[in-house]
Amino acid sequence: MIVAMSEKATEEQIQHVIERMMDLGFNVHKTTGAIQTVLAGVGMPVAFDVKDFEVMDGVAEAVRITSPYKLAGRKFRPEGTVITFPNGVTVGGDKVVVMAGPCSVESREQIFTVAMQVKDAGAQFLRGGAFKPRSSPYSFQGMGLDGLKLLREVGDETGLLIISEVMEISQIEAMLPYVDVLQIGARNMQNFNLLREIGQVRKPTMLKRGMCATIEELLLSAEYILSGGNYELMLCERGIRTFETYTRNTMDISAIPVVKTLSHLPMIADPSHGVGRRDKVPAMARASVAAGCDGLIIEVHPNPEKATSDGAQSLYPEQFTKLMGQLRMIAPAVERSIA
Amino acid sequence: MIVAMSEKATEEQIQHVIERMMDLGFNVHKTTGAIQTVLAGVGMPVAFDVKDFEVMDGVAEAVRITSPYKLAGRKFRPEGTVITFPNGVTVGGDKVVVMAGPCSVESREQIFTVAMQVKDAGAQFLRGGAFKPRSSPYSFQGMGLDGLKLLREVGDETGLLIISEVMEISQIEAMLPYVDVLQIGARNMQNFNLLREIGQVRKPTMLKRGMCATIEELLLSAEYILSGGNYELMLCERGIRTFETYTRNTMDISAIPVVKTLSHLPMIADPSHGVGRRDKVPAMARASVAAGCDGLIIEVHPNPEKATSDGAQSLYPEQFTKLMGQLRMIAPAVERSIA
Amino acid sequence: MIVAMSEKATEEQIQHVIERMMDLGFNVHKTTGAIQTVLAGVGMPVAFDVKDFEVMDGVAEAVRITSPYKLAGRKFRPEGTVITFPNGVTVGGDKVVVMAGPCSVESREQIFTVAMQVKDAGAQFLRGGAFKPRSSPYSFQGMGLDGLKLLREVGDETGLLIISEVMEISQIEAMLPYVDVLQIGARNMQNFNLLREIGQVRKPTMLKRGMCATIEELLLSAEYILSGGNYELMLCERGIRTFETYTRNTMDISAIPVVKTLSHLPMIADPSHGVGRRDKVPAMARASVAAGCDGLIIEVHPNPEKATSDGAQSLYPEQFTKLMGQLRMIAPAVERSIA
Amino acid sequence: MIVAMSEKATEEQIQHVIERMMDLGFNVHKTTGAIQTVLAGVGMPVAFDVKDFEVMDGVAEAVRITSPYKLAGRKFRPEGTVITFPNGVTVGGDKVVVMAGPCSVESREQIFTVAMQVKDAGAQFLRGGAFKPRSSPYSFQGMGLDGLKLLREVGDETGLLIISEVMEISQIEAMLPYVDVLQIGARNMQNFNLLREIGQVRKPTMLKRGMCATIEELLLSAEYILSGGNYELMLCERGIRTFETYTRNTMDISAIPVVKTLSHLPMIADPSHGVGRRDKVPAMARASVAAGCDGLIIEVHPNPEKATSDGAQSLYPEQFTKLMGQLRMIAPAVERSIA
Repeated sequence: MIVAMSEKATEEQIQHVIERMMDLGFNVHKTTGAIQTVLAGVGMPVAFDVKDFEVMDGVAEAVRITSPYKLAGRKFRPEGTVITFPNGVTVGGDKVVVMAGPCSVESREQIFTVAMQVKDAGAQFLRGGAFKPRSSPYSFQGMGLDGLKLLREVGDETGLLIISEVMEISQIEAMLPYVDVLQIGARNMQNFNLLREIGQVRKPTMLKRGMCATIEELLLSAEYILSGGNYELMLCERGIRTFETYTRNTMDISAIPVVKTLSHLPMIADPSHGVGRRDKVPAMARASVAAGCDGLIIEVHPNPEKATSDGAQSLYPEQFTKLMGQLRMIAPAVERSIA
Repeated sequence: MIVAMSEKATEEQIQHVIERMMDLGFNVHKTTGAIQTVLAGVGMPVAFDVKDFEVMDGVAEAVRITSPYKLAGRKFRPEGTVITFPNGVTVGGDKVVVMAGPCSVESREQIFTVAMQVKDAGAQFLRGGAFKPRSSPYSFQGMGLDGLKLLREVGDETGLLIISEVMEISQIEAMLPYVDVLQIGARNMQNFNLLREIGQVRKPTMLKRGMCATIEELLLSAEYILSGGNYELMLCERGIRTFETYTRNTMDISAIPVVKTLSHLPMIADPSHGVGRRDKVPAMARASVAAGCDGLIIEVHPNPEKATSDGAQSLYPEQFTKLMGQLRMIAPAVERSIA
Repeated sequence: MIVAMSEKATEEQIQHVIERMMDLGFNVHKTTGAIQTVLAGVGMPVAFDVKDFEVMDGVAEAVRITSPYKLAGRKFRPEGTVITFPNGVTVGGDKVVVMAGPCSVESREQIFTVAMQVKDAGAQFLRGGAFKPRSSPYSFQGMGLDGLKLLREVGDETGLLIISEVMEISQIEAMLPYVDVLQIGARNMQNFNLLREIGQVRKPTMLKRGMCATIEELLLSAEYILSGGNYELMLCERGIRTFETYTRNTMDISAIPVVKTLSHLPMIADPSHGVGRRDKVPAMARASVAAGCDGLIIEVHPNPEKATSDGAQSLYPEQFTKLMGQLRMIAPAVERSIA
Repeated sequence: MIVAMSEKATEEQIQHVIERMMDLGFNVHKTTGAIQTVLAGVGMPVAFDVKDFEVMDGVAEAVRITSPYKLAGRKFRPEGTVITFPNGVTVGGDKVVVMAGPCSVESREQIFTVAMQVKDAGAQFLRGGAFKPRSSPYSFQGMGLDGLKLLREVGDETGLLIISEVMEISQIEAMLPYVDVLQIGARNMQNFNLLREIGQVRKPTMLKRGMCATIEELLLSAEYILSGGNYELMLCERGIRTFETYTRNTMDISAIPVVKTLSHLPMIADPSHGVGRRDKVPAMARASVAAGCDGLIIEVHPNPEKATSDGAQSLYPEQFTKLMGQLRMIAPAVERSIA
């Protein structure tokens, strides 16, 4: 941490700041300039709040210079994390993986139909929600356990890996036998109790960025999971909230290369939530691959107009197939291939 | 719902939209203009997604014209909700209530000291966190049950009502004996499972606006709680996330009069989180009362520099006392008084 | 400026950064810690871009620690700027001034009518647009010079000071005889050529914050005007753009106390543009005074429904009169009075 | 326009709204439902403000259903605008054009060096600022006319087309002989006087999206230029302002396909300003082509560390050359080629 004192800071104020820094475990180096004094705190304290220093008397500015996360940082694993599934599929390696399927599991027929469609087009994972976070209490809330069972059944039959969202601590145990990847949704990115519990299980997990979370906050939430010992973690950009209203969210494509620089964790892109409109999903999926994502998660529904949720952003199966062809052309430009 | 068809919409496309609207339970009135056709869906379907219509072929625009919440809406209780506590304190009536205390309960001495200080200055509620949501896993996470017991003890001794945050479903039962108001934090505003459970208890609750939640989403989350039968609910503005970085958040003071128009629920203001800097908290507290809030929740600490959390935004007790004097001068301008 | 080198920075990279800092005129102090090296640049270079350092090899973080503006900073005039008008009205002193009037000058009858109404209620300034910035080329663009003449005439007759917006360099000369305060609108806050020209005139000026400008950028734009020698400058908060759509903008009330801390310039609040809805303007005007603004600028129209622009946010004269009464009750809480 | 009356609206209020709609030139169709009345205004008034209706007594919601721009809309030229330059280069056709060069023209040697470098790599346009908008009055403000002369000279010698920013009405005439494309910067997107003047000239123009402008506002600003008769217009996405601070702006890649749907105008992408960090520019450039842009404008400097402005986001020439190779691989996926 660096604390720049204001021009008029008294010696007493400076000493007071130095003491507080030392209390936290910093070694403090003091630079006295013609205009102001600068205090450099050297050392590794992780949990402190620079805001506490900013409001102290005589302080002009306080700045954290070490990242507040450790396990999530790139230097913890400079070579990058690669998650390997029992069937040999890897996430974070040379191949860009594709996860596809409906927003919600609605029926046996629906999920089997779409599973075959996305598999034929080249997906390796089937997505499908059994527990659904809905902003209105009057909306469809998911099939629950019955949905999970259908997912497992179709996964076993097709060889597709299953990814589904966990919303609540009490659901974790119930879900483990049925899914290959636990998904933590954007609204739960800072549900710290849930994150801590997920850190205790040994199941690959995908953590989505909250719609108003900074990249740093995403990595701090990842740190909760990693610090529990669950290292098979991937992150996901799914759009942030901005003033623009034409799209449901503004997909922050730049988060893809930024996360790849700051962290060793695989970075997935969700263009469906990112724009929220079916007609713009393919463009954002292509952009994500061109920007270097490790995978895509895309909503596909056999009959989007009749979907119980997120129909507006679900691709028709034939759109998805066409998109996969385009992605195969783009991937080599970033020295990747579509699995 | 109104669906405006594009100029080139075919009769077939129009019919298709009409059918989908009727499927949802709307009666559809069709207006054919020289340029375009407009479909007005009349009726009361609550749970539908206008986005589904926006992406349909031939549709220019689709707009919801009824609010997606019912129980939270002003017309459900035009006279406004007043919550009355056993000791006679009311929230939502003529008096503006003040809740004050530290971010976290840290020790018996700390909480008893600050309780007396805020009580003397005129607060009716003592705030204090026992379970703390922290963005870093390495930060202080709260005293837990021991903290709750201290809160109850000091509440019984001073007559102050106790408000404390619940983060997790499993904590609800444990907290009920110790607190007078359950607080749901900003990061849990869309933790729908938690909201639903809180709807089942009979305990006054304060729901904070998420830092990137619209006012409509806040009211939808309130609807989750109300629809469970828990009507003793108050809302809270605590700052939203914007591009401005000087303040921790941007406190949306306008949300106060807007919520008072749209809903019957009492509206509390949290200037501490709203700006995140002690030196600006009094200005925002005064502004909130001037804008018509029903109450304030303010962080006060006997020694902010040594606080385990949120020290930068905690007032010194003497600042709080001075502020209370200013608030007493402002309240009459909005035909209120400070309790 | 502080530059924190990364853990793995080579000695060569460190030397390279030091040289670049010295090129800019910094004296560089180097602190070598166990983990990383920190370089403190001491001195007063004003115009440099920390981003240039952030992307250099071996740099972990670069932070500016001196403010990029000088003349606009509080320490340039610690006692605060007070602007005194020929008729004795002051802005920035003990009294909170009120500027009121229609968005646009529409006719002699309109402007004389509203001038008398706002004067009777206690305003000292009459606002009225002659040149109007409109987002659509098909909207009313203002009466131009004829409008300015009407403003001057009504100003002379009523004793009200006149404030009106200048949109373009070529309008400056033409406006000088007619107005007492030149207003620079939010959309021109970073029209640097215009700012520079305004710096050359000797006429009190009000600079509005751009709708996505940070407070620092507002002060940098003020610096353009001050550095030309025009010191009779006031600033104005008028709402920033956020994700919330219920209000036209989100009025950043916290900018009022923040600007008062960072700068010596008077700070005006514009609640009309801040919320954009007549029914919420009074609440925001009250909040602004409670937060410590030096003045208010409020749209009032004798017949808002027929206004050529901004009718939705214009108060009826009787609303304005009622509001003035409330403001007179609030001002003493911040040791001010309404003029 | 659709106006939904509230449940309790009186017949008088409804009539009043109908009259105001008819005043504007709408034909009004009234739908009376069991719960509320809906008024559909049919016709083509362009300049009105729905906010005026939202605040009227008895109104629940008012919604514009026709776009507020005409000439900028896709249906004005369904086939899309293609701008053809004298040397045969086209913008908006099958080829994706690339504009490259330094932020500012700094010297003859600098501009000739970089011109050859970007030409060799495949650029068709040379960018370079002669008049620079800088947020600080103390920063380098550009070489002015001398810079323009150098640009023309290097353009004539290399065959590169020249694009440079116009900041002020008085500069237009001076610039016309020297540039092939006039650029209007983000900060001037709503400088309506400038837009109107640019509408009068016959010179291809590129209008950049303001950093907090919605896509609709961008198209309305385009309408100012088009309505003056200047149809050789292209638009440019260059990043919007959000809460994320790691990148200078958040590049809204989704604006590319959205503008292509809503408008017939070519859409250029500026990844340099979009992210503001050299190391992330290539990823965003690739993403833009994958999302369907008609061109790129990229900052390249022979020695970015010594650049007088925007050095942090300028590519080294060899990075640019490598990027061009990647773009050539991606373009075919969207049925385009890099010129």
